[in-house]
Amino acid sequence: MAFVVYIGCNATLAAAAAALCAYVAPAAAGSGIPEVKAYLNGIDAHSILAPSTLLVKVVPEAVIFGSVLGVSAGFVLGKEGPMVHTGACVASFLGQGGSRKYGLTWNWIRYFKNDLDRRDLITCGAAAGVAAAFRAPVGGVLFALEVTSWWRSALLWRTFSTTAVVAMVLRGLISYCRGGHCGLFGKGGLIMFDLSSRQATYTATDLAAVMLLGILGGLLGALFNFFVDRILRVYSLLNEKGALSKIILTVTISVITSCCTFGLPWLTSCTPCPPELAGKCPTIGRSGNFKNFRCPAGHYNALASLFFNTNDDAIRNLFSAGTDREFGVATLLTFFVTVYALGILTYGVPVPSGLFIPVILAGASFGSLTGSLVGSISGLDTGLFALLGAASFLGGTMRMTVSVCVILLELTSDLHLLPLIMLVLLIAKTVADCFNKGVGSPTWRCTRSLVAGDVVSDPLITLSSVERVGTVVETLRHTGHNGFPVIEEPPFAAAPELCGLVLRSHPLVLLQGRIFTRGRAKAVAAEVFRTLAPFDFAKAGSGKGLKVEDLELSEEEMDMYVDLHPITNRSPYTVVENMSLAKAAVLFRGLALRHMCVVPMTQGRPPVVGILTRHDFMPQYIRGLYPNTIPR
Amino acid sequence: MAFVVYIGCNATLAAAAAALCAYVAPAAAGSGIPEVKAYLNGIDAHSILAPSTLLVKVVPEAVIFGSVLGVSAGFVLGKEGPMVHTGACVASFLGQGGSRKYGLTWNWIRYFKNDLDRRDLITCGAAAGVAAAFRAPVGGVLFALEVTSWWRSALLWRTFSTTAVVAMVLRGLISYCRGGHCGLFGKGGLIMFDLSSRQATYTATDLAAVMLLGILGGLLGALFNFFVDRILRVYSLLNEKGALSKIILTVTISVITSCCTFGLPWLTSCTPCPPELAGKCPTIGRSGNFKNFRCPAGHYNALASLFFNTNDDAIRNLFSAGTDREFGVATLLTFFVTVYALGILTYGVPVPSGLFIPVILAGASFGSLTGSLVGSISGLDTGLFALLGAASFLGGTMRMTVSVCVILLELTSDLHLLPLIMLVLLIAKTVADCFNKGVGSPTWRCTRSLVAGDVVSDPLITLSSVERVGTVVETLRHTGHNGFPVIEEPPFAAAPELCGLVLRSHPLVLLQGRIFTRGRAKAVAAEVFRTLAPFDFAKAGSGKGLKVEDLELSEEEMDMYVDLHPITNRSPYTVVENMSLAKAAVLFRGLALRHMCVVPMTQGRPPVVGILTRHDFMPQYIRGLYPNTIPR
Repeated sequence: MAFVVYIGCNATLAAAAAALCAYVAPAAAGSGIPEVKAYLNGIDAHSILAPSTLLVKVVPEAVIFGSVLGVSAGFVLGKEGPMVHTGACVASFLGQGGSRKYGLTWNWIRYFKNDLDRRDLITCGAAAGVAAAFRAPVGGVLFALEVTSWWRSALLWRTFSTTAVVAMVLRGLISYCRGGHCGLFGKGGLIMFDLSSRQATYTATDLAAVMLLGILGGLLGALFNFFVDRILRVYSLLNEKGALSKIILTVTISVITSCCTFGLPWLTSCTPCPPELAGKCPTIGRSGNFKNFRCPAGHYNALASLFFNTNDDAIRNLFSAGTDREFGVATLLTFFVTVYALGILTYGVPVPSGLFIPVILAGASFGSLTGSLVGSISGLDTGLFALLGAASFLGGTMRMTVSVCVILLELTSDLHLLPLIMLVLLIAKTVADCFNKGVGSPTWRCTRSLVAGDVVSDPLITLSSVERVGTVVETLRHTGHNGFPVIEEPPFAAAPELCGLVLRSHPLVLLQGRIFTRGRAKAVAAEVFRTLAPFDFAKAGSGKGLKVEDLELSEEEMDMYVDLHPITNRSPYTVVENMSLAKAAVLFRGLALRHMCVVPMTQGRPPVVGILTRHDFMPQYIRGLYPNTIPR
Repeated sequence: MAFVVYIGCNATLAAAAAALCAYVAPAAAGSGIPEVKAYLNGIDAHSILAPSTLLVKVVPEAVIFGSVLGVSAGFVLGKEGPMVHTGACVASFLGQGGSRKYGLTWNWIRYFKNDLDRRDLITCGAAAGVAAAFRAPVGGVLFALEVTSWWRSALLWRTFSTTAVVAMVLRGLISYCRGGHCGLFGKGGLIMFDLSSRQATYTATDLAAVMLLGILGGLLGALFNFFVDRILRVYSLLNEKGALSKIILTVTISVITSCCTFGLPWLTSCTPCPPELAGKCPTIGRSGNFKNFRCPAGHYNALASLFFNTNDDAIRNLFSAGTDREFGVATLLTFFVTVYALGILTYGVPVPSGLFIPVILAGASFGSLTGSLVGSISGLDTGLFALLGAASFLGGTMRMTVSVCVILLELTSDLHLLPLIMLVLLIAKTVADCFNKGVGSPTWRCTRSLVAGDVVSDPLITLSSVERVGTVVETLRHTGHNGFPVIEEPPFAAAPELCGLVLRSHPLVLLQGRIFTRGRAKAVAAEVFRTLAPFDFAKAGSGKGLKVEDLELSEEEMDMYVDLHPITNRSPYTVVENMSLAKAAVLFRGLALRHMCVVPMTQGRPPVVGILTRHDFMPQYIRGLYPNTIPR
């Protein structure tokens, strides 16, 4: 009977989460960290694969509610990934010039109406998400740093300020809630480890044990990523079949999870409570160690103590110093295998699902297990082994060493552990990197043998520096490009030459303002900017802004000319057509460009032979052009 | 009598340090951090101003000995800057392919025989220096990150591994020395603050007090930088007069320092010891609080307790929780003013002199002072105020927020202080940035109105893709340039076009190997690389490697041809001549280039109009060309 209620509740919550993601906001599904990573790498790979999952289209509240439902359903998943996703989404919303839906249309938001500042804002949002999820402000800065491909000194300073504010606010809220003002909320919720009483002196044997842990963590992590990759492919086939199939998948996984968590404790026998804990053991009906689960008084069920807690409490149980002998080898092994398998199965489920908690859980149980086995030769205690196991498994799956290290340090608040954590992370990452790449790592690979000119394929569409209004309107109407090279043509130059680059939205402003001349003549820039303020050219939020279809121009106006000089970016970054594509990609990524002009090597040809966008660097696209090239 | 001995010892040590720097290694003088910063910014500004102070020419042991002598002489200076300098220098030495002088000529060092890896190695060296100086591995990574203008994911991972090793080794040595194996050494030497017992709950009033501290720290820091800048100019005039003048300057400052530290304690009256410290107060002849200095039994001299300690002990006294009431307002004020003034006076002295310790000392006393004054309205204790004062003054002078924050955290080992330290650093930096820039911040500013073509001034020297041997030899002999554009000329192309770029050292290898052809014909690349291995083209250490003067070619060989195609970099980064100089600088810095080709905008001209090196971006150089431009 209890089993039916348990399974029923979990399945209902899971179905609710899946329905939310399937019908309301499909982009809220998954961890969100791969999307954030891809964005910060300038890839936005999903905009190529499936335009609907763009970062800017995610609804933050769907992520939050979905995550709450998913965690409540008892899945082996974390809320940290969705929190990072939420941070980036909120930043993206603000960057879009506020949102009328939320009543956020303040005036200062207009400062973010350009690509550069909006990108910085989203980077800060991701950092804030990490800082809030782990209460790790420095970890947040390093996460942003480890993930982005562009980086400037100003960005360091900005992310740091953001996470400082997050830390202050979080601290204020926590101390407010600890005062008992928040009712049920405000207790726990943040993974904090109680390791500070631990003394950290270690011998050469301990170091060897730690290195072994690192190697095993790396191997397990690589294997985990391999299985996750496979299962994601299977799930994506299922998900394509529609919303109902998503819900069925989610409920199935939920039932499997419930069966495991409820069924497995039956297999273990009861353990007598340690005598010194008389009052606290076993516990029923409240969070804590030593769960009763059908055991007689004075006994507890070890597996239930891990499964029937919240994930955070389970982690705390594994890490805490006072419970070294609570879990036996068999218990730890069963728990590790179950969590490892469920973690793989759950990751691709279409609900907001983070990977941090499953990985930490699996890593901690695996670390405790190793600790129990080598305990006789090593002086380090089991709780520390659990922490190092979590670190090694995180290193093996995520491959982000520096930020994971700092996040773990900020969680444990014990800087004496730094050298050991660093060591184990470095070893795990090195080992795992021999096999495959991290979960959700963006791909940005170019073959060495290709040059920039090879991937320029679209028919190039250029504008003349002083262009007929009708031609501009036609061009904008018939192509979806976002940037157009502007060519200086006679009589303004002796021969055609590259004048610069205009963005799609800027000529629209000129057309809307009807700043035309009757003949082919240059306009006076000062006069243009007397009519139009710089802010008229600000980047609008997605879906807003001028559209070429909205323009209503008469036949006579269509025959007039518009001077693009005042709005042309005169210094676009250019590469020569025989520039190695890999080196062009370094420039493109490093400076976070959106367009790069390709100029000809030989003379006597048009002054620009093409435009490169991030689309042209994608392995999928390149493989389509040159099926036989092997990406580096 | 004691005064004479004191002054004499100090002056002798100071003279020894100054003589070492004046006669043996002039480049060892100063903090070293500005040099490291300049290098990591791709500037190497000093190689323009004074070629002898190049980072690679610094002798590490001179820095170490000079620093030991300087610290022993009782100067108000730190050893942290020189340690960072030493780290970078050791890395630079290794990068040069080892050093026969030290017997370090291992084979694996050859992996660093290229610009990119050598640069990464020096970045890691600087990070290792910070990690060792402050026992702050994460701080070291962030220091490198905050300072460098180039950054790649791989570099993060490399610096992190380096500092992890530093942390392990340092930890091993410390625990070995704590076992009493090191005699006098191994006690102290690292600034570690004992604040962990501190509880960190704070109210709005506390926050206001902390903000005030930040504002004051920013103001004082900006003023400090202003004075340091002025005094450096005066000192550099004095230093130009020769070695003797340097020694006289150093001894003078030493005498002033001695007079202050010895004389000022006479002005204060004795304070009765707090009764609970009966056994420990006053102390004579050993390090600790509560110095006797001519006071009767049961009394101590407060100023002497600060001046007659090592700098590290003085900092610990100010920070430690147990000595809240040891120092009165008058004592702290006197100490602060003295250290502030001596810090300014000492910074430019020609001995290895760090700025961290003086800044922390002055900041801590200023923080304690503020703490004593606002103590009645704020619940935070004086030791915490001292720490925050140090943070704010560091933020105001160094302007490196993130790394300073993490270094302070790693020193205090108390993560609960993070939000307050972040807040105070951000405020101090923001305030100070309104007035001037940080000490030793590299300058890399371009006027917005200039374009790349404007600063290309040297007569351009190019090579043909298949060039007469005699011409190559003549070109290399008569110019000091390091990179030459290679032009593809008829009959190999219809019209002259840019083929690529060769570095000075590479044609020398071909010439040395006598890979010539009789006529103007292309060589077969495979054949060239059958004779020469890729390692033959590796970058040699400074002063080593092939020189054009060493070539002995006959008249007949001089008339033969050499094909540069196989050794030409076919994908140099290029900018168009009308590219904004500021945007060209972004590219140059961001990708850490050494050469950038400037190509013409209009057709019918030579395919390359010039080459940009870092020299061309320096404000001094640009101001020489265009005296009326105002740098941004």
